[in-house]
Amino acid sequence: MEFPSKLISNAVEEFSRLPGIGEKTALRLVLHLLKQPNEEVKKFSDTIFNMRDQIKYCQTCHNISDSQICNICANPSRSKELVCVVENMRDVLAIENTQHYKGTFHVLGGVISPLDGIGPEKLKIASLLERIEQKGVKEIIMALSPTMEGDTTIFYISKKLADKPVKITTLARGVSFGGELQYVDEVTLARSIATRLPYENYLVKKEEREPKTSVEQK
Amino acid sequence: MEFPSKLISNAVEEFSRLPGIGEKTALRLVLHLLKQPNEEVKKFSDTIFNMRDQIKYCQTCHNISDSQICNICANPSRSKELVCVVENMRDVLAIENTQHYKGTFHVLGGVISPLDGIGPEKLKIASLLERIEQKGVKEIIMALSPTMEGDTTIFYISKKLADKPVKITTLARGVSFGGELQYVDEVTLARSIATRLPYENYLVKKEEREPKTSVEQK
Repeated sequence: MEFPSKLISNAVEEFSRLPGIGEKTALRLVLHLLKQPNEEVKKFSDTIFNMRDQIKYCQTCHNISDSQICNICANPSRSKELVCVVENMRDVLAIENTQHYKGTFHVLGGVISPLDGIGPEKLKIASLLERIEQKGVKEIIMALSPTMEGDTTIFYISKKLADKPVKITTLARGVSFGGELQYVDEVTLARSIATRLPYENYLVKKEEREPKTSVEQK
Repeated sequence: MEFPSKLISNAVEEFSRLPGIGEKTALRLVLHLLKQPNEEVKKFSDTIFNMRDQIKYCQTCHNISDSQICNICANPSRSKELVCVVENMRDVLAIENTQHYKGTFHVLGGVISPLDGIGPEKLKIASLLERIEQKGVKEIIMALSPTMEGDTTIFYISKKLADKPVKITTLARGVSFGGELQYVDEVTLARSIATRLPYENYLVKKEEREPKTSVEQK
């Protein structure tokens, strides 16, 4: 498309670089912003830039934060002995939304993926090992995506921790609540048969379950 | 959703205000921008603000422009006697993309829509009438959306021009090229039978067609 103004075509180009936004959507957004008052657009662009410019990461867990230590790490009622290892901030949000996790987090910043050029040195693995050694962490829950890359990362970290007195657990793998059995993929179904639970455990209320239950009975 | 940082939640809020962008998409865009280098995000926010701040509108046709008079109005090979009246810049782009229109434009900035509080005084109708009177416009093509609001606007303008020596035409209404007849709506189909064309006209190449053909034979 050829635009009547360089300003428009520059703005459309910037918007189209964002993921999932094509040229037509970008033009729609640009024309919407054009209709807004000048100060509204100023606020929009300032907010975006300030976000990138002033963002901080928690020195302990590497989650996004407004301060040097994030609210979760600074909260005395959250257990420092239980650390949940996740890929990114979105996973922290997802777990926080369950309101059932009382430990702290460690944000790796991704998973090991040689195809994308992401090796262990690009992730916050060294600081995780340091944290485990120095801060008396007793258990780490590997809450990574159930993919090849996620499993590779778990394997790598578990090797590094082989001689450390820390328990490593992973999220329980199995069929989802509310799903239909016929649509569950073969790997998940096969695994959930192999790691089947005694019915008493199934009945236990979520709140009462210990995070270690499923690991201990393997 | 509760975000770990005020900066993030502000940025997500700003993005969610854009049309068609919800909270989840906004968060995805924010996390994407967070991964970009600082100067890239600076460029993004500056481009958006400059666009809104420095944008100009052509004094003649009210299309978006980088200068006082837009490229189309300034082009001596474009007929000033033939003016195509459209709603907004997107319609100008669509007509320009056909590469078959050699006249100039007039951008109304919308259509009359009492339900949305848009009366004739909010559109660039006065300046269209002035332009027709002073600049020797011989024909205006009403290229508005084929909706109630579009038709109302055409009716309003045609009443205002009743005693002026200017020909008013509208885009031909009929079945689209490549469409299947069974899917054409009744109004369009009924109209396209009532305003049927002699087969010779149908055969005439687009380039050779006069814009007045379909009007004259009514």
